[in-house]
Amino acid sequence: MPQLSDRGLALPFSPYRKLTPYADAAKARGVHVLHLNIGQPDIETPPTMLAAVQQAQIRVLEYSPTAGYPSYRHKLAGYYQRIGMPVVADDILVTTGGSEALLFAFMCCFNPGDEVIIPEPFYGPYLGFAEATGVRVVPVPSYLDEGFRLPPIEELAARVTERTRAILICNPNNPTGYVYRRDELAQLLQLCQQHDLYLLSDEAYREFCYDAEFVSPLQLPGAAEHVVVLDTISKRYSACGARIGAFVTKNKALYQAAFKFAQLRVSPPGLGQLFAEAAAELPPSYFDHTRAEYRARRDLVLQRLRAMPGVECPTPSGAFYIMARLPVDSAERFAQWLLEEFSYQGRTTMISPAAGFYATPGAGHNEVRLAYVINQPAINAAMDCLAAGLRAYPGRVPQPTEAEVETSQSA
Amino acid sequence: MPQLSDRGLALPFSPYRKLTPYADAAKARGVHVLHLNIGQPDIETPPTMLAAVQQAQIRVLEYSPTAGYPSYRHKLAGYYQRIGMPVVADDILVTTGGSEALLFAFMCCFNPGDEVIIPEPFYGPYLGFAEATGVRVVPVPSYLDEGFRLPPIEELAARVTERTRAILICNPNNPTGYVYRRDELAQLLQLCQQHDLYLLSDEAYREFCYDAEFVSPLQLPGAAEHVVVLDTISKRYSACGARIGAFVTKNKALYQAAFKFAQLRVSPPGLGQLFAEAAAELPPSYFDHTRAEYRARRDLVLQRLRAMPGVECPTPSGAFYIMARLPVDSAERFAQWLLEEFSYQGRTTMISPAAGFYATPGAGHNEVRLAYVINQPAINAAMDCLAAGLRAYPGRVPQPTEAEVETSQSA
Repeated sequence: MPQLSDRGLALPFSPYRKLTPYADAAKARGVHVLHLNIGQPDIETPPTMLAAVQQAQIRVLEYSPTAGYPSYRHKLAGYYQRIGMPVVADDILVTTGGSEALLFAFMCCFNPGDEVIIPEPFYGPYLGFAEATGVRVVPVPSYLDEGFRLPPIEELAARVTERTRAILICNPNNPTGYVYRRDELAQLLQLCQQHDLYLLSDEAYREFCYDAEFVSPLQLPGAAEHVVVLDTISKRYSACGARIGAFVTKNKALYQAAFKFAQLRVSPPGLGQLFAEAAAELPPSYFDHTRAEYRARRDLVLQRLRAMPGVECPTPSGAFYIMARLPVDSAERFAQWLLEEFSYQGRTTMISPAAGFYATPGAGHNEVRLAYVINQPAINAAMDCLAAGLRAYPGRVPQPTEAEVETSQSA
Repeated sequence: MPQLSDRGLALPFSPYRKLTPYADAAKARGVHVLHLNIGQPDIETPPTMLAAVQQAQIRVLEYSPTAGYPSYRHKLAGYYQRIGMPVVADDILVTTGGSEALLFAFMCCFNPGDEVIIPEPFYGPYLGFAEATGVRVVPVPSYLDEGFRLPPIEELAARVTERTRAILICNPNNPTGYVYRRDELAQLLQLCQQHDLYLLSDEAYREFCYDAEFVSPLQLPGAAEHVVVLDTISKRYSACGARIGAFVTKNKALYQAAFKFAQLRVSPPGLGQLFAEAAAELPPSYFDHTRAEYRARRDLVLQRLRAMPGVECPTPSGAFYIMARLPVDSAERFAQWLLEEFSYQGRTTMISPAAGFYATPGAGHNEVRLAYVINQPAINAAMDCLAAGLRAYPGRVPQPTEAEVETSQSA
């Protein structure tokens, strides 16, 4: 039997995968599963995108240019410029989803053994891309009780070593919903300038900021050599299946290196680019409705969660995720129990244990990520299940509430 | 300025790229460039494929499952079974083009520093995937004068070391058009069994065999643990832009490792899968017309080449490429000269110097690869240019023909 590679063995399965068999079994038992576990939006994909593909006259579906169709790159540059990001078509390498932009960044910015600093918790697949490319992830903890704000810059500076090559952020953040402030981004960029680091900015959720202003580090003075924006149309236009993203940088040497990796796969998906090109022409007002809907859902989830005894959650300013601390022994056991042993009015809910977003063992063991990508009646039903589940769960931990703590301290 | 990674620096640009500025300049001068340089087929993409996408009702273009839509995997298994390949849906991981299947194979089968044996000349990007993943390519030479048949198995056996993990073939071969015989494949598989190696079989051109039977090593007894088929719809259905391929193996441990890499990018392109699914239902007779057209083109190119003094080329049995040795000092200089300094009746032709297909320095320096992906009148025009170019090229080498050699030897 031939051997598997070390990276093939070491690469973790997606944490989502662990719970899927339990969800499938629940469905087989006739339980309706309300999915708060994955970031697959339910908002309608703009019909103009599909129309663009359906009206296209294509005799031969040829390779597109390696960097993407010029027409799409120009329109995408127009989108960035309309929202104040100084991007021209030549800065854009169209990728097969945001994930390929991540792969190119890991391939081009790091040698095996190099290190990337990432505020924790973070999007789980970052660990996989690091494993695949031999890169060591150095987490810097952010905390639920602090709203998952960027840790003090000294915390990041203290983790810079001779092997550090980049800081990777997700802004707005998946899973925390935190939106980095301009002054935080300026501190990060300054640290990168001091140590010749790349600043990798995953901006998949850029358009979903509710009570904070979105700032890209690419908008800051001195960004050109350091900043790479990793982008995708997946969340912005509810178009996850198109697999169209972008690697955006003004660092020409880095762009050329990424371009060579892009040449290996010849071109990004052609039909998906036609689809994306139609989206790039949508006016900024297109997002008004979607943003209002997500904001209303966020507010609903927060209101419902905060009415549950022992549940704590900060207010996320962006993306479509909420991190919550639950009064349970283990969020993984609770999530499995909800699927395996529990139902309420014929329904249950599937949630993401936060452990999959932490590299530090044990961190976030009683936290979950909730994705508000289902409509408000469904959210209410899922919250009913969650509340009832928390009351019934045998592993509930009767942690004192803050009020009780205060009372006991003053006693 | 942050550093680039070693792999980002070392990765070569596509060899095609070198000549592109000269082709662009020729076009700017008003010269019509006939492209024999790239494998972008001109055959019409089956209209049923586009119709499937254009008739689809899609409210939200969601992520597909990581391994691809089950309906597509089942129909693709049906395609394989109809042509005698023992593949079931569970053996298939749908990929973003054949290139992602290659990436998964390099990631999963090799540790950095491991070796892959590849008959030379070979598809140029193999070197890039190896560079990206830290794998050393060990070429084993095949020769134009022997029709580029598989080198004697002892030649491959002699190159097996402790670091060898796989043999990679392309069947039918790009760039040589050679189709591996069943007995050659059996020898390769036996060698892989003896040394616990993977046998990676790139079968992008499977449907294009003209006077040889196509055999996949997956059809041989004992293949299950060793063989990985790397596939793509790009050439088969003239659908290069769809970026849909497949990683096919019955080795479950390897499949699981590849699946983990696939999870990092969540899913293959959705619209492309709809497109590919329609193709998977086409009957085997669909290829009759395409195969006949390519065969007629091959015969035309061979007839024209063999009428040019000093040009030598074996008869390729498959794919849509012909390798030819030209009576020139350097195929690279000649190809550039054709674009930069030459035209015939307002036209010139762009050809691929074979150096990009060899890892051994200097090998194939006077060989070119011609892709017969333009129609027969265009091929005739391109051959007129090539013939006239060879007559006029200042770097022409008056090599003796075989007849002249024989005459001189008998003298």
